[in-house]
Amino acid sequence: MEAYKVKAYGASNSILNSLSEMEVERYAPKADEVHIEILYCGVCHSDLHQVKNDWHNTIYPCVPGHEIVGRVVEAGSSVSKFKVGDVVGVGCMVDSCGVCPACQEKEENYCEGPVSWTATYNGYMKPQNKDFNTFGGYSTDIVVKESFVLSIPKALDIAAAAPILCAGVTTYAPLKYWGAGPGKSVAVVGIGGLGHMAVQIARALGATVTAVTRDEKKREAAEQLGAHEILISTDSKAMEAHELQFDLILITIPDAFDVNDYVKLAKRNGVITTVGLLGPYKLPLNNQEVAMHRRSVAGSIIGSIAETQEVLDFCAEHNILPETQAIDIQYINDAYSQMQDEEVRFRYVIDMASLKQEA
Amino acid sequence: MEAYKVKAYGASNSILNSLSEMEVERYAPKADEVHIEILYCGVCHSDLHQVKNDWHNTIYPCVPGHEIVGRVVEAGSSVSKFKVGDVVGVGCMVDSCGVCPACQEKEENYCEGPVSWTATYNGYMKPQNKDFNTFGGYSTDIVVKESFVLSIPKALDIAAAAPILCAGVTTYAPLKYWGAGPGKSVAVVGIGGLGHMAVQIARALGATVTAVTRDEKKREAAEQLGAHEILISTDSKAMEAHELQFDLILITIPDAFDVNDYVKLAKRNGVITTVGLLGPYKLPLNNQEVAMHRRSVAGSIIGSIAETQEVLDFCAEHNILPETQAIDIQYINDAYSQMQDEEVRFRYVIDMASLKQEA
Repeated sequence: MEAYKVKAYGASNSILNSLSEMEVERYAPKADEVHIEILYCGVCHSDLHQVKNDWHNTIYPCVPGHEIVGRVVEAGSSVSKFKVGDVVGVGCMVDSCGVCPACQEKEENYCEGPVSWTATYNGYMKPQNKDFNTFGGYSTDIVVKESFVLSIPKALDIAAAAPILCAGVTTYAPLKYWGAGPGKSVAVVGIGGLGHMAVQIARALGATVTAVTRDEKKREAAEQLGAHEILISTDSKAMEAHELQFDLILITIPDAFDVNDYVKLAKRNGVITTVGLLGPYKLPLNNQEVAMHRRSVAGSIIGSIAETQEVLDFCAEHNILPETQAIDIQYINDAYSQMQDEEVRFRYVIDMASLKQEA
Repeated sequence: MEAYKVKAYGASNSILNSLSEMEVERYAPKADEVHIEILYCGVCHSDLHQVKNDWHNTIYPCVPGHEIVGRVVEAGSSVSKFKVGDVVGVGCMVDSCGVCPACQEKEENYCEGPVSWTATYNGYMKPQNKDFNTFGGYSTDIVVKESFVLSIPKALDIAAAAPILCAGVTTYAPLKYWGAGPGKSVAVVGIGGLGHMAVQIARALGATVTAVTRDEKKREAAEQLGAHEILISTDSKAMEAHELQFDLILITIPDAFDVNDYVKLAKRNGVITTVGLLGPYKLPLNNQEVAMHRRSVAGSIIGSIAETQEVLDFCAEHNILPETQAIDIQYINDAYSQMQDEEVRFRYVIDMASLKQEA
């Protein structure tokens, strides 16, 4: 099978501000694969972590991007779900082992195969095979197995839908798993890329939603997203007044923090779950606070392919869209600096037409 | 109501080896209370923590003991569950607020009243009221509200049953709550007072049981208790081979430890729960390991009054008994030293007749 070069934008090392135009190899689709022309790609906080090698598993060159919306331009001979011209999406995964208990139960995002699921960029989640790599959505084209490709519902604005593929499913999956719905009180901690989707989704699921943020400036935005109440986490009296209040606390903070601050907010039998942190908390968990009210401190990672399709359909049905700002790919290093400084209002989406233009 | 003095054994300060004979006040039973002559009292690891003031809330003098078996010698006028001569038990609680959601739902052990439930000794769980104290089972007599008194089934050996009131219910309640039963794989970590009850109970509930201990010498005992398998926690290869193996990991270690060692043993969607630690873990929890398999790190504390009666009946039905060694009260300081040095094989039970003898 012959490789051909496509334009991409990636990092050659862990220094921020270093993403630049490069070429990566793609192949013609195999029988069960589709070739997608990428139209939009969301910029996720994970992209920043991965480029900086925060998880100590980055292989360079690294071409990020796992919130991909595009158009099918070629379909392999056995592909049945998609045809040329369809608007489709690719999220965080492009493959998994297919045979472990998790894959058999359609929870590919918890694949227990020897190298876990295959990430859309930076290849395997575990660094066993340094010779293997995948390149993500900051490129003109991608080729993906049809079983890992999603349908983008016609009702969704395709220029804004991309972040649903990561930020959407990453919050939808735990909200569903831990029962967010009518009669349940849900706190969403961190009102950024993930959190602003979580607030909208939890509200649409029927839960009572409290947005927890340290940033008073996000109050109005959180209210507009549908939060019933805003809790400012730096206000210790307000935090104390909310102890034992929530059935579910969904924490989207992407860096190490002290989870004990939030454990106290959970009701008896309540769940505190973290979706944005891939590493240790800042301080040891105090089991006294956990045990005294039979709480649970949990975590989840993205969602399954079935859940990704579900959240796309759910967002279309409930008129939920990520708040996005379109950028040209050439702006990406500035966008990363802003994410780093937490100046981003929700989600950047790269208009990939900018990559096709002559430099 | 007039107080009278009864003999007790307690600590006047946090120095180990300092328990000595003393007198405490008891009152005639109110209408809803029973007066119990104490026959046996188990020695719990908590007694040691409390005497040493490990939880920074001990009020001295401190008379420990919350695994009490005795005989009703007097019943208040409205008492209907018990009559003089009945063999009864008192566990960790003697009262709770009665009006909070937890109490209303008969989960008194998670009482959310201003001072939580009232502990059988050392009064309130929260140190709001330093003037209030309760004195436990290392004494000849105790007076307790009937709704916090348990029936000891006739089939149970009353000289050995006492530890069921704490060690039994503390492990039974989480095993039930997190679904230990047929088809489930349960690891019990720490094969001491709590753990040796957990192994027997989990087995009788129908689960497949693995006893996890760092002490090779406990292998035979764990097998006799009913463990299907023994895992030595200091054997890093064996630990690695057991990653992703357990639906439920019940940890009975009473002091700070690194929970991350055990998180890896849990299956996808599995629960790691700690019942013996009232304080922080040794190191920060690594959320990566938690999230990658949607695990939960939980905790529980003792059990409700209904669960305490349930476990007494369950033990009677399944011929489960704590392994105990009878001691005279005068031996208590040596017993504490042995617990401290982890030399205790399961549970000491004080034969309270020894306290009634003239010194």
